[in-house]
Amino acid sequence: MLSQTIVDRLKEIVGEKNVVTKPTELFAYGYDGTLLSGDAIGAVFPETTDQVVELVNYMNEQDIKLVPRGAGTNVSGGTIPSEKSIVINFTRMTKVLEIDTENFVAVVEPGVVNFDLQQELEKVGFYYPPDPSSWKASTLGGNIGECSGGPRCFKYGVTRDSILGLEVVLPNGKVIRTGGRNFKSEPGYDLTRIIVGSEGTLGLVTKAYLRILPKPVTKKTMLAIYNKVEDASQTVADIVAAGIIPTTLEMMDNLLINTTEDYCHAGLPRDAGAILIIEIDGYPEDMDEQIETIREVTKKANARDFKIAQTAAEVDQIWLSRRVAFGSVARVKPCYSIQDITVPRSEFPQAIEGILKIAKEYDMIIGLVAHAGDGNLHPLVLFDQRHADEVERVHGAEGALSKLAVSLGGTMSGEHGIGVVKKKYMDVEFTPGAMEAFRKLKKTFDPANRFNPDKIISI
Amino acid sequence: MLSQTIVDRLKEIVGEKNVVTKPTELFAYGYDGTLLSGDAIGAVFPETTDQVVELVNYMNEQDIKLVPRGAGTNVSGGTIPSEKSIVINFTRMTKVLEIDTENFVAVVEPGVVNFDLQQELEKVGFYYPPDPSSWKASTLGGNIGECSGGPRCFKYGVTRDSILGLEVVLPNGKVIRTGGRNFKSEPGYDLTRIIVGSEGTLGLVTKAYLRILPKPVTKKTMLAIYNKVEDASQTVADIVAAGIIPTTLEMMDNLLINTTEDYCHAGLPRDAGAILIIEIDGYPEDMDEQIETIREVTKKANARDFKIAQTAAEVDQIWLSRRVAFGSVARVKPCYSIQDITVPRSEFPQAIEGILKIAKEYDMIIGLVAHAGDGNLHPLVLFDQRHADEVERVHGAEGALSKLAVSLGGTMSGEHGIGVVKKKYMDVEFTPGAMEAFRKLKKTFDPANRFNPDKIISI
Ligand SMILES: Cc1cc2nc3c(=O)[nH]c(=O)nc-3n(C[C@H](O)[C@H](O)[C@H](O)COP(=O)(O)OP(=O)(O)OC[C@H]3O[C@@H](n4cnc5c(N)ncnc54)[C@H](O)[C@@H]3O)c2cc1C
Ligand SMILES: Cc1cc2nc3c(=O)[nH]c(=O)nc-3n(C[C@H](O)[C@H](O)[C@H](O)COP(=O)(O)OP(=O)(O)OC[C@H]3O[C@@H](n4cnc5c(N)ncnc54)[C@H](O)[C@@H]3O)c2cc1C
Repeated sequence: MLSQTIVDRLKEIVGEKNVVTKPTELFAYGYDGTLLSGDAIGAVFPETTDQVVELVNYMNEQDIKLVPRGAGTNVSGGTIPSEKSIVINFTRMTKVLEIDTENFVAVVEPGVVNFDLQQELEKVGFYYPPDPSSWKASTLGGNIGECSGGPRCFKYGVTRDSILGLEVVLPNGKVIRTGGRNFKSEPGYDLTRIIVGSEGTLGLVTKAYLRILPKPVTKKTMLAIYNKVEDASQTVADIVAAGIIPTTLEMMDNLLINTTEDYCHAGLPRDAGAILIIEIDGYPEDMDEQIETIREVTKKANARDFKIAQTAAEVDQIWLSRRVAFGSVARVKPCYSIQDITVPRSEFPQAIEGILKIAKEYDMIIGLVAHAGDGNLHPLVLFDQRHADEVERVHGAEGALSKLAVSLGGTMSGEHGIGVVKKKYMDVEFTPGAMEAFRKLKKTFDPANRFNPDKIISI
Repeated sequence: MLSQTIVDRLKEIVGEKNVVTKPTELFAYGYDGTLLSGDAIGAVFPETTDQVVELVNYMNEQDIKLVPRGAGTNVSGGTIPSEKSIVINFTRMTKVLEIDTENFVAVVEPGVVNFDLQQELEKVGFYYPPDPSSWKASTLGGNIGECSGGPRCFKYGVTRDSILGLEVVLPNGKVIRTGGRNFKSEPGYDLTRIIVGSEGTLGLVTKAYLRILPKPVTKKTMLAIYNKVEDASQTVADIVAAGIIPTTLEMMDNLLINTTEDYCHAGLPRDAGAILIIEIDGYPEDMDEQIETIREVTKKANARDFKIAQTAAEVDQIWLSRRVAFGSVARVKPCYSIQDITVPRSEFPQAIEGILKIAKEYDMIIGLVAHAGDGNLHPLVLFDQRHADEVERVHGAEGALSKLAVSLGGTMSGEHGIGVVKKKYMDVEFTPGAMEAFRKLKKTFDPANRFNPDKIISI
């Protein structure tokens, strides 16, 4: 519990209405997209960078830890207060400060929801490439915290590739500005990319310069349906080998086809082994030839059906099941653990084989959604939290999946971050030298360990 | 001078033929693309990562500083031994270890010359996007050290955007591997991008995973000629505003047109104010419409001539003068100082105006070459080193140009790095908080200040 003096000072800094201290209300800031939760000792909602600086300085004075929070949709325990902490919510810093179409730059506050920005950009014929499936809820500050990806990141890169500059409040209370409106690298060490993906452990992002792009002239959406998941995964390699770089290559397996059918009746055949959603963009003149190539490739890989969306409604129809994928599995088991393993594209078939083996070995139901072009697989390990043995097997399967990814030259996390959930697997992937470098970096920026402590690594 | 014991040990580590200690021979490792030079106390040529580790460990033991060196073409004093140092040359680690067309990855040793890799890739229909104009000489290790750009980086990004992973020997002698064959972000802090652009001050790159791409199906090269430099710069903004993202938008002004004509007789009109080289790539079907748009845009901006290369020979002809640009100015003055200021594209005309003013104010001849799409200008400040007053004015102009860039929301260095040459302007661009962060980062990685000391910042 915070003393009245502290509460009063917090209210002085951010305003009466921007401080929450009642345990019943605090509950809302102690969870995220995982099953974990923790108790915050307070929650504040700054509205300006100056307020953030004042908060950081005051919390340093009082030796209070903090957890930065956007929408809390992360799936790695990244916003769970692991020690007595105050949650700093960025959801009242929601201004799109500028859309500069001349320089392809948008300047935003961290609490702007990804989709809200996209809608603003749409009006002027632009878009911001990173599109996490959570984009209707997740904030740009959170996207930066996790270095989020999304379906179209295969062609356009992840959040890291779209951040030109940041304004950051460091643990010592100092404000730094990195990069800016330039496309080329800033001099000195790359502070921008040290912060991107650092999950709130090194600094608080209070403003971001994002790289935006003119909307592609045309986009075509295709759906291919397979009897066997292996054939879908072969298609992924073959499309790229044919010299085509689609915007999107999303895959769902039989389990997900069925759970999404139960949920939203998108009309997918329940006996199919897998579907692939394929999108390409570019000039209208390019489309036909590429579509023909893709059609042939899918045919060669034994696709049993291939559709090209002709209208916006048909595009929506194709995306319908993918959009509800994660939620839909609740009908099978009440809980799921989303994994995020990423392998070199050539190892994609081996990864799928490995996942099937792990499901058998640990006797778990594992559904599969994948940003397949990236080699980024999201095995959904389904379980019932009320059964202790199942929970134990989930952890076993998680560990085995992480090791599988690393053994295939991949990583345990392509876009969801480490948080607390994957911390214990860090040394599977990294050498002691790299672990030491991580620890030293954290200590350099945050010697008192006050910014989102115990996420990524413990020091 | 190194003691015989040390020399013997160095020879034991890298082999007799890979150690240079004679002052006359060492001379070759004490300069770079600037006018500076320094005296190395030794030069070694490791051939394996293990040898690099042994060297670092031994030099730690003996408290000897080191300067990593590729081809020494950098233009910021980045390989000048600023203290008694041994130069570690990577020019005998020149293996292209793997070209993995399935995953779009090339694995290389640091001493591979950029162009040599491009030729290997060409054979299998691929290329590596970053193409510094020095590519026939400069090494990938050096490109990584400086986060180099090049003409086609407007569309495809700088070195940072093409590095997927690294093997690095840290100042403590530990080897870390960051990233790898995945396109998506690695977990933990972004060690890859802390090393890219760190100019050899934080770690020695012994292997790199590069992102390669299939060669575009078609490329078209155009040349537009203007009476006034302002019109050329207007064209840059207009092309992009028309929704076209060219691969390349290179500019040269009247001075460079004349010096290059003297040098290579490319056939440019000597009375022209500026030329623009414009390249687009993509599918053949897209080309005509884009070319038509570009032609119209240049016409509207008063281009007096517009050519489209029809043959490979015509492409070479268009590039001829640009390729010899830097060297050609020697006919006007014996020395030049290349600047590297980069501004948001919208500020490009103001930057040119500012440069012309500075030339007048400091009474210097300043020629202009620019990666114009990026807003990256290379003013060449011409002078004669034998005249002390000119040298002083060069420094005045350099400072003024850096300030100009920052005042326009840009940076003093887009792709050439800081080295020792631009160190003194760092605090023009960065706040004390950022400067402190740089210093702390250096101290964290290299507390004894042994890796390329006094480059970027002094600690
Ligand atoms: C249904 C669903 C679908 C999803 N799909 C995707 C997907 O396709 N791709 C993908 O990558 N992820 C996906 N995610 C995961 C999640 O949405 C992303 O990680 C998202 O970027 C989190 O944003 P947020 O605003 O919810 O951030 P939060 O969860 O609130 O925070 C994320 C991290 O960033 C930190 N943080 C937040 N704001 C700041 C700030 N201003 N300064 C510093 N640190 C800050 C937090 O401390 C935390 O460590 C999905 C999640 C769900 C539930
Ligand atoms: C005519 C000319 C044209 C140029 N054109 C361009 C251009 O278009 N774009 C551009 O960006 N630059 C350009 N440059 C600058 C220069 O070529 C680049 O900076 C290039 O990347 C340097 O490569 P290098 O092999 O010569 O490296 P070096 O000059 O030897 O070293 C560069 C830096 O990297 C460090 N380094 C080298 N190898 C390693 C390693 N293995 N591990 C760690 N650190 C290492 C060095 O210590 C140094 O700090 C040009 C230079 C010239 C002379």
